[in-house]
Amino acid sequence: MKVELLLAGGGHVARRFIVLLEECRDALAAAGVEPVIVGVTTRRHGSIFDKAGLDAVRIARGLAKGDNIGPASSPSTLDCIAQLRSQDVETRVLIETTTLDIRSGEPSTSHVRAAIDAGAHVITANKGPVAFAYDDLAAAAAARGVRFLFEGAVMDGIPIFNLVRESMPLATIAGFRGVVNSTTNVLLSAIEGDEPYAAALARMQAAGVAEADPSLDVDGWDAAAKTAALANVWLGARTSPHKIARDAVTPAIADRARAARRGGRRLKLVARAARTGERVEAAVELQELAADDPLAILDGQANALEIDTWPLGRVVITQRDGGLEKTAYALLTDLMTVARS
Amino acid sequence: MKVELLLAGGGHVARRFIVLLEECRDALAAAGVEPVIVGVTTRRHGSIFDKAGLDAVRIARGLAKGDNIGPASSPSTLDCIAQLRSQDVETRVLIETTTLDIRSGEPSTSHVRAAIDAGAHVITANKGPVAFAYDDLAAAAAARGVRFLFEGAVMDGIPIFNLVRESMPLATIAGFRGVVNSTTNVLLSAIEGDEPYAAALARMQAAGVAEADPSLDVDGWDAAAKTAALANVWLGARTSPHKIARDAVTPAIADRARAARRGGRRLKLVARAARTGERVEAAVELQELAADDPLAILDGQANALEIDTWPLGRVVITQRDGGLEKTAYALLTDLMTVARS
Repeated sequence: MKVELLLAGGGHVARRFIVLLEECRDALAAAGVEPVIVGVTTRRHGSIFDKAGLDAVRIARGLAKGDNIGPASSPSTLDCIAQLRSQDVETRVLIETTTLDIRSGEPSTSHVRAAIDAGAHVITANKGPVAFAYDDLAAAAAARGVRFLFEGAVMDGIPIFNLVRESMPLATIAGFRGVVNSTTNVLLSAIEGDEPYAAALARMQAAGVAEADPSLDVDGWDAAAKTAALANVWLGARTSPHKIARDAVTPAIADRARAARRGGRRLKLVARAARTGERVEAAVELQELAADDPLAILDGQANALEIDTWPLGRVVITQRDGGLEKTAYALLTDLMTVARS
Repeated sequence: MKVELLLAGGGHVARRFIVLLEECRDALAAAGVEPVIVGVTTRRHGSIFDKAGLDAVRIARGLAKGDNIGPASSPSTLDCIAQLRSQDVETRVLIETTTLDIRSGEPSTSHVRAAIDAGAHVITANKGPVAFAYDDLAAAAAARGVRFLFEGAVMDGIPIFNLVRESMPLATIAGFRGVVNSTTNVLLSAIEGDEPYAAALARMQAAGVAEADPSLDVDGWDAAAKTAALANVWLGARTSPHKIARDAVTPAIADRARAARRGGRRLKLVARAARTGERVEAAVELQELAADDPLAILDGQANALEIDTWPLGRVVITQRDGGLEKTAYALLTDLMTVARS
């Protein structure tokens, strides 16, 4: 089955996805999937669209070097999505990995909506659409007969949405709690160990782990967006990142983190939500956890999510080795889901 | 879709499964699945088979009280499987939960083979078939066009096989390590805390956690069978429980467990296997783990498995709340897989 892909966003995740598709070409072919990348759009390096298919690996290499791949901002992502509509191929997919404006959930939410309207499946690693507009987009996708998938939005490549959707049929979820933001977790470990806060943050920005605007991480916005995404999908919360109370990980909490550690406990930024009757309560908050809590043992870029389920009780899934290249795998997982459906 | 079920084994897991099917009848119907239990066979309480369908909840209640459900040992499980063959319903399933003879992998392996030969799908919570004969049975099932599923064989209801098969497409597994036997884990926690070994074991036998023959747990047989099952399915090991070296959890290791704890570490019975080239090395062994190891923090009936994957690195799945009723859910998960395929 030929699957036409339009990539909105040409950053690390998109480029790794292009290479991963190439690495897995034989395995995909064995599964009957023949991906063809027909467009790549970027914010700063131009865009390109060709129904005949692109040499995407060459494009990815160019983008990695900072090359422009086409004339500035033309065609636009929405133009390209409109061209997808006119295709005669049955399976068309938007791969959405643009940079999120956390205040608005854009431009990804508009891209997703336009693609669904155009009859294309949507796969996104972006938290925005699912954190800001899950119910609307899921309903639109169902009405249009396409999939709206977002495995990469939380916990990189760990297939948590997939696990619940495909492997826990008939199960229900009462709540969850997790450590889902790597930057704040690394910062908390650093200040416990007496590395200065500013030095630890600079180290992570240099390594590309922290967002360019550190407030997105340290003020809890990233964790709040992930909490909203999980609560919308699993708990029917109809919430958004702005409605989630957030604690910040700032130098002011260093004493508290060190005191917890001396007492055999650990201070962690916990993303949590739980349903009580019709009400869903969600927050991103600093908690002192016992040393043997599955969330307390996480260091560095490790993430974990504990899901409170019926009938399995508390199930924890832990990613010990995080990283953006794993997010590219989440896109591939979702592509296989589209191909199977 | 009408699905005819024959239950081989009438113990706790089978009885809980019968009730779970009833509890989920509406949800199953919404998914297009109409299960009909046509037979229940037991070793000591007789057997019953009726193509018209049985009042299984009544049978489960009777078995829980120790009632006989039919004449002693007639019809036999193999007789009932043969009668499945003659059915005109398209989807027939053997649900296999008999008691395992760890030395032979029987009678479950023969039951599974007969059901596959009869054109029935097989769902088992039994470690035997997958630990002793995975390759043969998987090949036979593929040739006959039926499913051979065994989610309940390891980690109760946690869908680990399902996770890898359905939610991690194209991923490869290089190895795993885990705490997969609850009795030895409870024993290790007890002797660290100075509860006498014999008292802890007696407590767990009274609670129905430990096997009636404690050697199956404490000599590592249960963990070895699970290790063989995982290594066969994920690493193509073609091994069996007898080929896996086993450490035992006996009173003799109490000093070692306490010394580890005093040193800030924990002694755990670790089931592990890894592939190196064509060779798979597997063992069940006592290891002293750092306090922040995801396996070290497990107490009581908690289990966990760390899978070493490409491209996701180390992924840990932890069951914090174990129990036989969760194994019944694994059977339901597999039933949904059969229904979807």
